[in-house]
Amino acid sequence: MVVPDARESVLIVGSVALDTVETPAGRVERALGGAAVYSSVAASFFAPARGVGVVGAAFPRQHLEFLAGRGVDIRGIKIVDGKTFHWAGSYEGDMNQANTLATELNVFQSFAPDLPEDYKDSKYVFLANIDPALQLDVLDHVRNPKLTACDTMNFWISSKPDELKKVLARVDIAFVNDAEARQLTGEVNITKAATEIRKLGPRYVIIKKGEHGSLMYCDSDYCFSAASYPLTEVVDPTGAGDSFAGGCMGYMASVDDFTEANLRRAIVYGSTLASFNVQGFSLSKFREITRADVENRYREFQKIAFFDGA
Amino acid sequence: MVVPDARESVLIVGSVALDTVETPAGRVERALGGAAVYSSVAASFFAPARGVGVVGAAFPRQHLEFLAGRGVDIRGIKIVDGKTFHWAGSYEGDMNQANTLATELNVFQSFAPDLPEDYKDSKYVFLANIDPALQLDVLDHVRNPKLTACDTMNFWISSKPDELKKVLARVDIAFVNDAEARQLTGEVNITKAATEIRKLGPRYVIIKKGEHGSLMYCDSDYCFSAASYPLTEVVDPTGAGDSFAGGCMGYMASVDDFTEANLRRAIVYGSTLASFNVQGFSLSKFREITRADVENRYREFQKIAFFDGA
Repeated sequence: MVVPDARESVLIVGSVALDTVETPAGRVERALGGAAVYSSVAASFFAPARGVGVVGAAFPRQHLEFLAGRGVDIRGIKIVDGKTFHWAGSYEGDMNQANTLATELNVFQSFAPDLPEDYKDSKYVFLANIDPALQLDVLDHVRNPKLTACDTMNFWISSKPDELKKVLARVDIAFVNDAEARQLTGEVNITKAATEIRKLGPRYVIIKKGEHGSLMYCDSDYCFSAASYPLTEVVDPTGAGDSFAGGCMGYMASVDDFTEANLRRAIVYGSTLASFNVQGFSLSKFREITRADVENRYREFQKIAFFDGA
Repeated sequence: MVVPDARESVLIVGSVALDTVETPAGRVERALGGAAVYSSVAASFFAPARGVGVVGAAFPRQHLEFLAGRGVDIRGIKIVDGKTFHWAGSYEGDMNQANTLATELNVFQSFAPDLPEDYKDSKYVFLANIDPALQLDVLDHVRNPKLTACDTMNFWISSKPDELKKVLARVDIAFVNDAEARQLTGEVNITKAATEIRKLGPRYVIIKKGEHGSLMYCDSDYCFSAASYPLTEVVDPTGAGDSFAGGCMGYMASVDDFTEANLRRAIVYGSTLASFNVQGFSLSKFREITRADVENRYREFQKIAFFDGA
């Protein structure tokens, strides 16, 4: 895997999973999944990723080889006795909502991130959706990051709000979906909710809205509204949000120059990766596409969003 | 009312109403409303509008004077014995859905559009949401239009599908919201639904998604995705879709040059008008703002959507 323009690596901590997913397009059993996997493979289109996670003893070795082949450093993915985290879910209709059928945490239940020494100098850090106490632990071990970001979910917002707020106080970017933004703040209006989240710490709040695109709020007078790619078929939405955030952080690591203009580009690259990801089950689409495909779709996004001045 | 750059007028047919609306921001009783009113006042920021509708004998004269003062030709709005169309509704939470509390058609029930002779040479025609049989009747009386568009609603999709299809076969642009696009085609995927609607006739399908912006589909390889304006407070969403379509058609009449680039601009102007409209009850915000405010917000839309090339 060649990552020609990477200037920095991105450290990614989160779940590595075997997912059983059913959608109107079909079904896969115990396929490669997990937030850390989707986000690190998305990031790997732009920059080397450093994965931190845990799998069970029987986790298929070809999955780890696939990650390594994508430029993902897998030394931070521990193999321990027990079973790998397993999620089973289904999607229906507009597929905007997953129905969770089973969540077996297995080895993920006692997961404690253990960073290889050189990981601690990572300049770009993405804390994918895990227990905020673990997100904090990772932040404690990274020495001098340039850009940190977190994701979360409804479960942590309701069960560990204090730990989550500590995470938010320490990251630069919060990735949340619209429902999570509302849940976290009690604000129905998304712009108000984003403002409230920014008060908790993150200078940048990126609201993921699935098929409706995303919104980025920051100190600027204007937020950024990014379209989603108008697909005629969504095969499997699993991992879209992780691919979005991973692509976004991977691009930021590759340019290693934090400006709002670059963050806006990164968000469109994130949308690009998310749009490819949902075109196949598990990581099948990421296995097919090249960086050139990513660049072509980025240019399509430009055409989709373009309008002339007044 | 000065409309400095108007090259053509836009004929608009639809409801003129007195609305009672309750939202978390307050309540108005029997305030000026109706699809033809919202859309013709939105259009009037760009071009003269020609209104076609009906009101009851007691309809407040200041409402008609307001329309005339905005550059709306009111000769096509008939005053007849009986009561004006009355709609009562409320909005809660994210206000994306109206709860209809009362619909009293009154004089609108026996409405038959009767176009003043000079209206029949209108080059721009917007058939707001009314019985598709009446939309067809208007099309039959317009001699040589350059650009025709229709709106509709769930009620006509289920009750008069054949008449609606005849309308769609004859207009250039169909404005529908996402739920209507799905209902009309049976397709959950919006891009597929838009393609199916285009097969029924309209070369351009514009899907209105409320707070999630809009999508325009045409023969081009790329659709156009427009953001909505990120408001911190929505006072009353009534008339947003009508303001969007009216602003869009008014802009097209003002430039009188049909290109995809102009249509994309028109959609952003439509979004601009819709965003102002929802900031007040009834047409209160339209009474406050000037064309300069519209231009300023258009430029804000540019900043909100902008990202650099890859």
